Amino acid sequence: MFSEWLKASIDFSKLLVLCDENTFRDCWPILKGILPSDVLVDFFKMEVGEVSKSLSICNRIWEKMTSMKMDRKDLLVNLGGGVVCDVGGFVAASYLRGISFVNVPTSLMGMVDAGLGGKNGIDLNHHKNRIGSFAFPIATVCDPVFLKTLPDIEWKNGCAEVFKHALIGDAVLFETLSVDGCTRENFTALLHSIQSVKLKVVEDDPFEDGFRKVLNFGHTVGHAIESASLKKDSTPLSHGEAIAMGMIIENEIMFQLGGLDASSNNNCREVLEKHLTKVKITSYSDDDLLEWMQYDKKSANGIIRMSLITSIGSCSWNVEVPQEIIRKALQSFR
Amino acid sequence: MFSEWLKASIDFSKLLVLCDENTFRDCWPILKGILPSDVLVDFFKMEVGEVSKSLSICNRIWEKMTSMKMDRKDLLVNLGGGVVCDVGGFVAASYLRGISFVNVPTSLMGMVDAGLGGKNGIDLNHHKNRIGSFAFPIATVCDPVFLKTLPDIEWKNGCAEVFKHALIGDAVLFETLSVDGCTRENFTALLHSIQSVKLKVVEDDPFEDGFRKVLNFGHTVGHAIESASLKKDSTPLSHGEAIAMGMIIENEIMFQLGGLDASSNNNCREVLEKHLTKVKITSYSDDDLLEWMQYDKKSANGIIRMSLITSIGSCSWNVEVPQEIIRKALQSFR
Repeated sequence: MFSEWLKASIDFSKLLVLCDENTFRDCWPILKGILPSDVLVDFFKMEVGEVSKSLSICNRIWEKMTSMKMDRKDLLVNLGGGVVCDVGGFVAASYLRGISFVNVPTSLMGMVDAGLGGKNGIDLNHHKNRIGSFAFPIATVCDPVFLKTLPDIEWKNGCAEVFKHALIGDAVLFETLSVDGCTRENFTALLHSIQSVKLKVVEDDPFEDGFRKVLNFGHTVGHAIESASLKKDSTPLSHGEAIAMGMIIENEIMFQLGGLDASSNNNCREVLEKHLTKVKITSYSDDDLLEWMQYDKKSANGIIRMSLITSIGSCSWNVEVPQEIIRKALQSFR
Repeated sequence: MFSEWLKASIDFSKLLVLCDENTFRDCWPILKGILPSDVLVDFFKMEVGEVSKSLSICNRIWEKMTSMKMDRKDLLVNLGGGVVCDVGGFVAASYLRGISFVNVPTSLMGMVDAGLGGKNGIDLNHHKNRIGSFAFPIATVCDPVFLKTLPDIEWKNGCAEVFKHALIGDAVLFETLSVDGCTRENFTALLHSIQSVKLKVVEDDPFEDGFRKVLNFGHTVGHAIESASLKKDSTPLSHGEAIAMGMIIENEIMFQLGGLDASSNNNCREVLEKHLTKVKITSYSDDDLLEWMQYDKKSANGIIRMSLITSIGSCSWNVEVPQEIIRKALQSFR
């Protein structure tokens, strides 16, 4: 079906599949079986992880595409998680001023976040996503078969984004998740609702002029905790754990600001602690965390801005938060 | 005036000027005097010429921008000819997923072509403009004062594009150019007509879905000649010479196809040879040139497509050209 849809959608004669070592081993054999048989298909395999989000990898992929004589009508397929979609989106958007690409996310995170929304990016000397563009895939193909080999830790990372989407845009989804969480069993039934939240936000504000920043809920504090942990802990927190803690603490901040009622705040905290993780920030000082928050892209001139929910299913953005309030909220978790 | 307009148009606090060695020497002292005085201004100087259209130069500019802590609101000013605008457009479009930029073309080519229209690009291993994107400057500032120091060879390169614009869209302009060419004396009077051809095409089809391809007249064959020359000749042809030859040969192709009458074909050839250059392709084989043409972005599935004029002032695009016709046209110039 994928093959027929592809052929009907775009008139291409060459197709390059971008994958990493894991998806090459686990997913490429499956994907290969459903690609059109009458086009030239080749693959490019990159190293697993953030190390591949580099200009030199892009250069090698562009050389590969050139050696295949790929033209503006040809197609790139990104088979992997967030990193593969991030790199592949930029590579496709910049080859001959942009060719079509399809995302085939193979992680929960990819299916609910990185594979949708059209943001791509690579790193420049440890500056995350410094180079990149906005470019939308012609399709994002989500097949749960690819998730079978996904490690539990990666599943958990995706779950944090699932809860985030519910909290910023879908109270009914949050109700459902409150009971069972997001599991390998109920995931397929929930996928459409989860993706709808993100797609609606992206459609309203594709280039992040304003509203799209709500997708950053949990991430100002979450990234600060993640960065502090990467620097201090011998076994750093996972991205999902850090974002879960970020959401809990940011809700406390909004409660302190008077923008979120006590019962929603408590309810969220209970649900997130039950299904994701408890807040564990005792090993980082308030000063450390505040310093990291000032590096956040929403902050400027020392003023910290956050995207904060005003009720379950509704989120505001560019909320200026005084440092005393952040300290007070952090204290309540120590 | 430029300074006031800039400050009123965008809220920026840092400005990087991209220039090459020539424009740094000749134009930067002029520009510096008219930039806002209350923002951080710095410059990046690159080598003159096509050699700077590389990923490694982009990398160095991005590092410079990062070291200045430029953010999404800051501004890049491209002070130079086609190469500076091509590189700078791509650099701005890809830094933090796109920041604003202003083109200040200092060459004829820049004022009539590269500085307008929103296409940017860098080369990949001799493949011209293989990597790039569409991104529109917030303004293109054309001041003839910058052309005073432009070397003659660069003037000639721009002239090829001026003739191209006339051939594809303005028969009256071509009449004028037939007599005097495009000179430092008559240029200012002609600038508006020249730019109007390009701007009208770009407005009708900004992302080159169809009609915009007429701007590629002369470039399928011209780029092939330029690429062959870059690879083979110790003193490669200039861009303008290559494009002039491209226009002459492509007219011969359209004549062979029956789409252009003999008298227009001969008239064009005479005028272009008089004001630009004669066809000199004896050192490249037909096979070499045909291979380069297949890399052309308008080509697909091995089928070579060209934009060819049907009369002086009118152009068609996506014209499929059989290889025998191309060989026949090339032969007539050997």
